[in-house]
Amino acid sequence: MQVSEFIKNLKPYVPGRSIEEVQRQYGLKEIIKLASNENALGPSSKVVEAVQLAARDVHLYPDASYYECKKALSEKYNVPADMISLGNGSNESIDSLIRIFCEPNKDRVLISQASFVAYKVCAHVNRIYVDEIPLRENFEVDTQKMSLSFKQHRIIFIPNPNNPTGRYLSHKNLEPLLKVAENNPNALLVLDEAYCEFVRAQDYPDSIALLKKHKNIVLLRTAAKVFGMAGLRVGYMFAHPEIIQLVEKARLPFNVSVPAVAGLKAALQDDEYIRNSQKMVWEGLDYFYSELKKMKLPYLESQGNFIFFDLKKDAGIVFEDLLRKGVILRPVKNYGFETHMRMTVGTRRENEIAIQSLKEVL
Amino acid sequence: MQVSEFIKNLKPYVPGRSIEEVQRQYGLKEIIKLASNENALGPSSKVVEAVQLAARDVHLYPDASYYECKKALSEKYNVPADMISLGNGSNESIDSLIRIFCEPNKDRVLISQASFVAYKVCAHVNRIYVDEIPLRENFEVDTQKMSLSFKQHRIIFIPNPNNPTGRYLSHKNLEPLLKVAENNPNALLVLDEAYCEFVRAQDYPDSIALLKKHKNIVLLRTAAKVFGMAGLRVGYMFAHPEIIQLVEKARLPFNVSVPAVAGLKAALQDDEYIRNSQKMVWEGLDYFYSELKKMKLPYLESQGNFIFFDLKKDAGIVFEDLLRKGVILRPVKNYGFETHMRMTVGTRRENEIAIQSLKEVL
Repeated sequence: MQVSEFIKNLKPYVPGRSIEEVQRQYGLKEIIKLASNENALGPSSKVVEAVQLAARDVHLYPDASYYECKKALSEKYNVPADMISLGNGSNESIDSLIRIFCEPNKDRVLISQASFVAYKVCAHVNRIYVDEIPLRENFEVDTQKMSLSFKQHRIIFIPNPNNPTGRYLSHKNLEPLLKVAENNPNALLVLDEAYCEFVRAQDYPDSIALLKKHKNIVLLRTAAKVFGMAGLRVGYMFAHPEIIQLVEKARLPFNVSVPAVAGLKAALQDDEYIRNSQKMVWEGLDYFYSELKKMKLPYLESQGNFIFFDLKKDAGIVFEDLLRKGVILRPVKNYGFETHMRMTVGTRRENEIAIQSLKEVL
Repeated sequence: MQVSEFIKNLKPYVPGRSIEEVQRQYGLKEIIKLASNENALGPSSKVVEAVQLAARDVHLYPDASYYECKKALSEKYNVPADMISLGNGSNESIDSLIRIFCEPNKDRVLISQASFVAYKVCAHVNRIYVDEIPLRENFEVDTQKMSLSFKQHRIIFIPNPNNPTGRYLSHKNLEPLLKVAENNPNALLVLDEAYCEFVRAQDYPDSIALLKKHKNIVLLRTAAKVFGMAGLRVGYMFAHPEIIQLVEKARLPFNVSVPAVAGLKAALQDDEYIRNSQKMVWEGLDYFYSELKKMKLPYLESQGNFIFFDLKKDAGIVFEDLLRKGVILRPVKNYGFETHMRMTVGTRRENEIAIQSLKEVL
């Protein structure tokens, strides 16, 4: 079957190992999975209730305009409803922006090394070229170099905070790219803020304010992380109405499911769950910092719900050793880091077991 | 914002009017909505239970390979698991096939007039040209003319049965296109069988047998109709492993949600619900035939869960008159039919109210 070189060369997405798989392979009962940056609290009880209620309506299509859900998002974030679009996870929003704004076999997008794999996959599926700028030595996204490398790229993707490093960009560090956006009204600056609710840094940019100032800034948010809804598949995009209009015209009808819409509406009301998620993550990170320090393993301070640290030996071997103990972490060789590991913050007990197991295998 | 002409000219999808909207507009309590070919039985109790149970796991990503779900489909339909891929509704599968196999700004797809709008929308979003062949006078898809019009098209989309007409193609009528597929190994013949479980015609093609005989036939099925799961958003594609491999590489990770997977697995076990759905639809269609005959309104015998009939006057006016009575049907002007209406089969009571209201407004 004849297909484009872009398609032929696609590498399939490699997800974290699943709990069932590891149970089967090693004959283990309890598995601690800190591999996919899921919310270890479990879902909000309000989301569970809303999904259970919505289960009775799954024979009906969702409201095609997602009117109520956009209204709830609009009120929560103080962004007009005509600046909001929903996606089947942020993945779909990323894909949608590329396919709408980039011309196949011609246009290019600009990304940073070691950023979310979806940018590259979606670009290649849409026959779009990708230019990748190396990280700084301190693992920060090099916005200076990115701004200098900008050559009529249609989209610049900036995950902030970045997965898998946990690094963030301050307003000041973002400025070179804001200038590029200002000078290139046909380019989009996409700030992917999947983990923004976990940020503790004081100089994290106020992206909603930026959105209102620049016509070509797009924000991506997701319900997968702080809302604990990874399995429901819903993300949302904030952008200028002109952009949203195109995205809405081009998206598949009914792209977000009835339970996802119900869950998201409930999650937006549940501030207590969000506070509890933040508390768990921040305490967990502080625990990881102190333990990794004791173990003399270099780590990066994280603004996400995960930590990126250096094992100083082949991460693949450590990963396998941990699997045998029933602990699933995430090696990041596919991002170009041979000795680094990404570990999601779990519950206190999960974090302790993970650290203990790490000590044993190292 | 500069975008392709394909994108600029996109027409947004116009869904059926929602119950809430019509309630608000006319101050009505009870609304009968027979506009979107949903399953009037409501969801299967087994699906409801499965979704309610899955609600507790929505903080976790779905299994990225959908292993268990494909296994269940494989057993149910006797199709190997490596010939199955899941989509966020059939919409996503349609989109996926076009983007993988068609070269933007160059390739063409072949469709029939008055077939599912998603083919055209997905083609244009992907910058693919569309050639559309008129229906025969009896509203049948003209496979003869389509086969003669075939000119290196990469994909031919054949909905069977067809929405909105309810017409089907027998094996014999499909043959000219099977020949095209045989002679053009780089073209795909996609049989979209969203409504296949409602077919009563004896000479409906055995598409699973065709699939095993031809390497370039693709079947699309959905859980939205006979399984009563429109709001869960899950469809499935059967095709040769070589095609499925490409689709799996190119699809977004986690494209189908946790509740959708749980619901589908439950639905595949619930033969009684399927039988009840079929019984309701077949009895409803027979009732519609006899009533429309009395009213002297020409109709087509339908192999779907809806009926296509001729009001012999402007369908837009009748549609508005019915709305005032709280009955939502679906005018099909967007398919080029000025005086025709599509009506979904509802419960017996809904069908009777719809027919009664039709009598009153005509």
